[in-house]
Amino acid sequence: MASDRPRFAFSLKARDGRARTGEIAMRRGTIRTPAFMPVGTAATVKAMKPESVRATGADIILGNTYHLMLRPGAERMARLGGLHEFMRWDRPILTDSGGYQVMSLSDLRKLTEKGVEFRSHIDGSKHMLTPERSIEIQRLLGSDIVMAFDECPRADRPMAEIEASMELSMRWAQRSRDAFDAGGEHAANAALFGIQQGALDRGLRARSAEALRAIDFDGYAVGGLAVGEGQEAMFGVLDYAPDMLPEEAPRYLMGVGKPDDLVGAVERGIDMFDCVLPTRSGRNGQGFTWNGPINLRNARHAEDTGPLDPRCTCPTCGNYSRAYLHHLHKSGEILGAMLLTEHNLSFYQQLMQTMRDAIGAGTFAAFAATFRADYLEA
Amino acid sequence: MASDRPRFAFSLKARDGRARTGEIAMRRGTIRTPAFMPVGTAATVKAMKPESVRATGADIILGNTYHLMLRPGAERMARLGGLHEFMRWDRPILTDSGGYQVMSLSDLRKLTEKGVEFRSHIDGSKHMLTPERSIEIQRLLGSDIVMAFDECPRADRPMAEIEASMELSMRWAQRSRDAFDAGGEHAANAALFGIQQGALDRGLRARSAEALRAIDFDGYAVGGLAVGEGQEAMFGVLDYAPDMLPEEAPRYLMGVGKPDDLVGAVERGIDMFDCVLPTRSGRNGQGFTWNGPINLRNARHAEDTGPLDPRCTCPTCGNYSRAYLHHLHKSGEILGAMLLTEHNLSFYQQLMQTMRDAIGAGTFAAFAATFRADYLEA
Repeated sequence: MASDRPRFAFSLKARDGRARTGEIAMRRGTIRTPAFMPVGTAATVKAMKPESVRATGADIILGNTYHLMLRPGAERMARLGGLHEFMRWDRPILTDSGGYQVMSLSDLRKLTEKGVEFRSHIDGSKHMLTPERSIEIQRLLGSDIVMAFDECPRADRPMAEIEASMELSMRWAQRSRDAFDAGGEHAANAALFGIQQGALDRGLRARSAEALRAIDFDGYAVGGLAVGEGQEAMFGVLDYAPDMLPEEAPRYLMGVGKPDDLVGAVERGIDMFDCVLPTRSGRNGQGFTWNGPINLRNARHAEDTGPLDPRCTCPTCGNYSRAYLHHLHKSGEILGAMLLTEHNLSFYQQLMQTMRDAIGAGTFAAFAATFRADYLEA
Repeated sequence: MASDRPRFAFSLKARDGRARTGEIAMRRGTIRTPAFMPVGTAATVKAMKPESVRATGADIILGNTYHLMLRPGAERMARLGGLHEFMRWDRPILTDSGGYQVMSLSDLRKLTEKGVEFRSHIDGSKHMLTPERSIEIQRLLGSDIVMAFDECPRADRPMAEIEASMELSMRWAQRSRDAFDAGGEHAANAALFGIQQGALDRGLRARSAEALRAIDFDGYAVGGLAVGEGQEAMFGVLDYAPDMLPEEAPRYLMGVGKPDDLVGAVERGIDMFDCVLPTRSGRNGQGFTWNGPINLRNARHAEDTGPLDPRCTCPTCGNYSRAYLHHLHKSGEILGAMLLTEHNLSFYQQLMQTMRDAIGAGTFAAFAATFRADYLEA
């Protein structure tokens, strides 16, 4: 790791309305913002080689603590030289805390002040995640951006429950901070992000932001969104929540989203995103284009010799026809997942680059209007 | 297609015992022999981009008439510009005749002098394959090396049945020749191979070879092997069958095989091979090495930071550990299939190159002895 590079330095280069563009300099590389992070769940961005992920324009990827702690295991990963060496990705990796997946994937959860007890969805084995253990796992993985361990309740739970959960998450945020700071060399080279909770309630969001600012983090995530509340409700929160967070730190909207979600969130001041949508869609036959998503399994593509998206610069669009992609997806061929994932990730990165350019040029509002006309009304 | 290149010119460069090395010059490229052809069943070498297939050292790939006639369909493929354009492989493609898959995959077959009636294994639709239709399909696909349509009975059938089947295949070989020759521009740019039958019977093999020589083909396949008879019985046939075929034409052993099968068959005068083994194994976790095949799902690889094969020059062995391949295959990740398929195809091509070099140097016997000691007795 190049120690002549900063541990974590976020510099804003331009603003356009509430939208911002800049970069985060870290030991393992620079992250251009607004940034989209492809998800590498199980130490692989599914159906992609790491050099191909990089070629799409990704500066950083995300790894899932929950999946990696179960397989291959955090201590084993450390013995193997860490996640970067294991999967051959030498640029920054952000790891989530495992909290979200414990809630959504595992069985037999028991939530206490200490942490969460759960059973693996793979083999039923019993595990415990606490703020301290989550941070330790992320250190063992060699994460560059470590996420605080939090609890993410559904937005439709009773308000008292959401409030209690947010308060628990803020106590866990402090414990995460303390555990991270005790991490020695890792703490000297990595960054720690806190996560704002509070569901759809402005007052709770303000209290959560205040608690996080008091603890002090390198960056701040807006958590607890994209959990079924819908785009309108999400944008409603984003109308105020990012501005509650420090202006000089990056703001990360976790688990989002569709291309039009990204545009609306950047418009509201978000700097970082991750989502499985482009990779998962790539395996399921959904391709993203500037004129909206299309289902390549649809028979209307069977004899279409044109590219998936004529404006796209990716290798898939440069080489292959919609007819071929249709054939591969109808036939369940692995190459279909490979080519469409590569396109979708490229499309997402082209969208991010276009947004960064528009913010830099002060033309974001015009870009967003054109994007929506093409993408949503095609 | 470069018309200044020969339609089909096989030149032998060296012999070593019965082993031969040379090259086949064709319109779309030159095929170094002995050659291994990766199988591209459904217009894709599974889990590989075409440029990666080429980078392994493959000069030619195989396409399956049966699969392609069912999906996307031969006439549709022709409208889309042919198989090369569809799958973006611009070098030679050999297509089989569909006869073997009709017997092994489809339902409700009815065999007559005219051809075979069958139902698709995909949707149950009814189809008919005759020598004329098989050749027409291969022309519509744009095949460079067209295979005669034959019937391949199991080697354990009664002798009278095997004899009758061989004689039928020889009548079909003549009809295939006539249909191919009527193919106009395609016939002027492609080659036609006949297929020797006769199972494990020397007399039938001789009569089949005589019939094929009378018809005259660009190349000759040894058919009806690798259908369950075992390596010893196969080598028994190869001890005499290739020498019954014209010396100045390439000899192709269909559907073979394991690395030790290839070495033994080259030793007996075979010039061309195809097999799904390296690609299928790549998806199933079996990796080929100079010290024999290994199962990457085995727990003993879980913390092995060494490469799959230290002698292999492929990108997988250059970048990734056995531990990572183990993790990917245990987790069912597509990247596991991608990386292991690339290694296996590279290993096969390195084996072929090593054999070509040994024949050229007159050291094939020594190579084969060393290979067997390392590969079979490891």
